Amino acid sequence: MSERKQRSDADAVVHSGGGEGGDAVISDQRLLRGARSRRTIVRHAVDVASLEGLGGLSLGRLATDLGISKSGVQTLFGTKENLQAAAVEVARDVFNDAVVHPARTAPRGAARVRVLIERWVEYAEVPLFPGGCFWAANLADFDSRPGRVRDALFQCQRDWRALLAAELRHAADAGEIAELDVELAAFQIDAVLIAANTALRMSDEEAYGVVDKVRRVVEGFLVPPH
Amino acid sequence: MSERKQRSDADAVVHSGGGEGGDAVISDQRLLRGARSRRTIVRHAVDVASLEGLGGLSLGRLATDLGISKSGVQTLFGTKENLQAAAVEVARDVFNDAVVHPARTAPRGAARVRVLIERWVEYAEVPLFPGGCFWAANLADFDSRPGRVRDALFQCQRDWRALLAAELRHAADAGEIAELDVELAAFQIDAVLIAANTALRMSDEEAYGVVDKVRRVVEGFLVPPH
Repeated sequence: MSERKQRSDADAVVHSGGGEGGDAVISDQRLLRGARSRRTIVRHAVDVASLEGLGGLSLGRLATDLGISKSGVQTLFGTKENLQAAAVEVARDVFNDAVVHPARTAPRGAARVRVLIERWVEYAEVPLFPGGCFWAANLADFDSRPGRVRDALFQCQRDWRALLAAELRHAADAGEIAELDVELAAFQIDAVLIAANTALRMSDEEAYGVVDKVRRVVEGFLVPPH
Repeated sequence: MSERKQRSDADAVVHSGGGEGGDAVISDQRLLRGARSRRTIVRHAVDVASLEGLGGLSLGRLATDLGISKSGVQTLFGTKENLQAAAVEVARDVFNDAVVHPARTAPRGAARVRVLIERWVEYAEVPLFPGGCFWAANLADFDSRPGRVRDALFQCQRDWRALLAAELRHAADAGEIAELDVELAAFQIDAVLIAANTALRMSDEEAYGVVDKVRRVVEGFLVPPH
């Protein structure tokens, strides 16, 4: 879905950001599309942001990195905030494609929780983003900066916790696992994943055993009722 | 202890960073001490870093913020890395004074764990640093940047987890609480604290109930043996 969605978002940004000379904007955009799509620019923005934080992004830096004109990037995104918001959206799509969607083939409940966690571990160990988890790198950075970038970042975290909570709820209702406070459990699992991601970015010594810790914490919530 | 420690560190930095013109360096330093101490500069650096990350620090910016000459700041710290390392050290002292040292009056074991957590909650709710927890703001930021700043940051985290683990171990050995994997428990508690700190920086809606979550997680590890 994301390719089509991205395109209509690109149009929205151009139209709202443009103002004068609509035709010039559109032909600029076509030129850029020919060489490197907006998606490529945003994907690179996501990589930079996973390493240095969304704060480290700038329209000029991306233009330099990718060998395109700054005015072209400016035409597409208008402001740094638009670029940051677009990066959050693409990061979310990449995360969903890697972690959330594959788990849909697993039966709901405990089995799906396990698949989600294994996919997450893979995502953190062989990262899709060079700096590891995009959210771990940016949530703490943006928590003191109100605005739509922060809102978008936290919406992703809320969605992820809600997904874990829903599957735990399903497992408990089906009698697969002992009754538990699913909100609290999802909060704890998410916290442990973020801590594990940090450890995985560090030395081998620091990372040693951390995936095992994650699995043990999750299994602690998946014990059958007695 | 920290005041004396800071001073000898300042000297060490000046001596290693200086090189030529030792007398000029010392008189520069005396001038600066008269107006604003190194501690004031570093304390401001810690505040900036808690909000914008250690990456947001620069010698020039601190000089401007505090109305002192950039060359004076340069004389004291030499490099941005020295300044960042000094900021980590002061942040650790502030944290220890606020959270770790007061808990020493509590009996070892479960009681001390509870005091540590309550002091930590206070530290995160009415933050000593304007951006909230200094480590939450910087660990994720520095995890992909090897070097002595990262090492110093992670040493603080290791010390904190080791302290929690030691008190849990004490509680279990004394039969106060049920046997548990204290390393895993300390890892989980630390992860939940960092997640709570992030929530506390956000809207009231996001922060609602998060301190209660922290307490419930901790109490979950402090159940008496059956």
